Amino acid sequence: MPYELYYWPDIQGRGEFVRLALEEAGAPYADVARKKSGMIKLERILESERVKHPPFAPPFLKAGSRIIAQTANILQFIGARHGLAPKNEEGRLWVHQLQLTIADLVAEAHDVHHPVSAGLYYKDQKREAKRAAKHFLAERIPKFLTYFEAVLMRNGRNATYLAGARLSYADLSLFQVVEGLRYAFPRAMRRTEAKLPRVVGLRNHITARPRIATYLASDRRIPFNENGIFRHYLELDRAR
Amino acid sequence: MPYELYYWPDIQGRGEFVRLALEEAGAPYADVARKKSGMIKLERILESERVKHPPFAPPFLKAGSRIIAQTANILQFIGARHGLAPKNEEGRLWVHQLQLTIADLVAEAHDVHHPVSAGLYYKDQKREAKRAAKHFLAERIPKFLTYFEAVLMRNGRNATYLAGARLSYADLSLFQVVEGLRYAFPRAMRRTEAKLPRVVGLRNHITARPRIATYLASDRRIPFNENGIFRHYLELDRAR
Repeated sequence: MPYELYYWPDIQGRGEFVRLALEEAGAPYADVARKKSGMIKLERILESERVKHPPFAPPFLKAGSRIIAQTANILQFIGARHGLAPKNEEGRLWVHQLQLTIADLVAEAHDVHHPVSAGLYYKDQKREAKRAAKHFLAERIPKFLTYFEAVLMRNGRNATYLAGARLSYADLSLFQVVEGLRYAFPRAMRRTEAKLPRVVGLRNHITARPRIATYLASDRRIPFNENGIFRHYLELDRAR
Repeated sequence: MPYELYYWPDIQGRGEFVRLALEEAGAPYADVARKKSGMIKLERILESERVKHPPFAPPFLKAGSRIIAQTANILQFIGARHGLAPKNEEGRLWVHQLQLTIADLVAEAHDVHHPVSAGLYYKDQKREAKRAAKHFLAERIPKFLTYFEAVLMRNGRNATYLAGARLSYADLSLFQVVEGLRYAFPRAMRRTEAKLPRVVGLRNHITARPRIATYLASDRRIPFNENGIFRHYLELDRAR
């Protein structure tokens, strides 16, 4: 039975980390809310009192009768089933640790344009966002990406992946973060990337993987836009 | 061999979720940075290039020769080893999903007093913090805690715990969040708690567990203060 992914239909958002893993795994799935009446189905599950393990928010994945939520948790599930994570406990926890660190960066990237509240429009917190962007670009992006550069370096001189010799869901997620940061902050990222050859190399490797390349060229890949996590606002990319 | 927990010595912070799990498990551990020269040891590990799986930030746990970071990931490790999580995959992922949702609430609780940047003092983002607090108190705390109330309700009419019939690390973490929110926002929490009998019941149950009660009364429990995640600023508790 194909998986059912439930996520907002018009943005990449956190759902994209799950899409990338499913695509790389070649696992059949329906992107439910992008289909007719799909949003009604999504809302029905969120509101139902009969769901045994209710999600707090999308994304969530339906696998048979089970519903699994929280991006990093869904990835842990997919990783174990489809060979996108090590089989032994030590490797499994290490990949998950990397994923949770990526999740922290993703949350910060979102909060840059919504520092006051996700319940307000960007225009109503633009001034605060400019202040936040200054620190995010100068301190946080370099700190996180330099960390992942060091992780790649420590995995071996010619390491392709973050953890061991095989691709994991964390590699796919790091690719997505680089793409997102490039979209949102092209100017700041040009400066930062110059010192991150391994992170850029991983990003390039992922785009060249056949299933990912096919996916990225398809209309299943929603373009970046100003409703998602990574948003391009000129005034934030230039914040100093 | 006892575990070694590495976390900032003067705050509960994210380390506290790990401490509570270790205490409930009765697992021997050293709270390294609270001992003599402990901060030097912590920084040495953060800076060392020989650590195989480097942490991005504290808390991290040393278990034999392994170093494991990211709070929810550490809890997953402790949970499996010490019976603080279900053994089957479905239950294990459900508890982790709950933990990651708690982690989202914890991150938001921190960002209320640091909406612009964790690199700035509170006083330098006080105005933004007041705006953020208004939304956090009116919308986010109720949304999260009502969710956990529903999870408890769905676990059975007389359920004590969030998941199944046994205590898990997520229960301990929810206790900690309630304690933290009560400390930071006593006024807002009094209003909100009135509608959350099950969440309050779980909090009370946890404080009465013998090992937790002993821990809370000991000097191993660092008092809440205005350097941690949950901070009591009158102007934020009263934000409207």
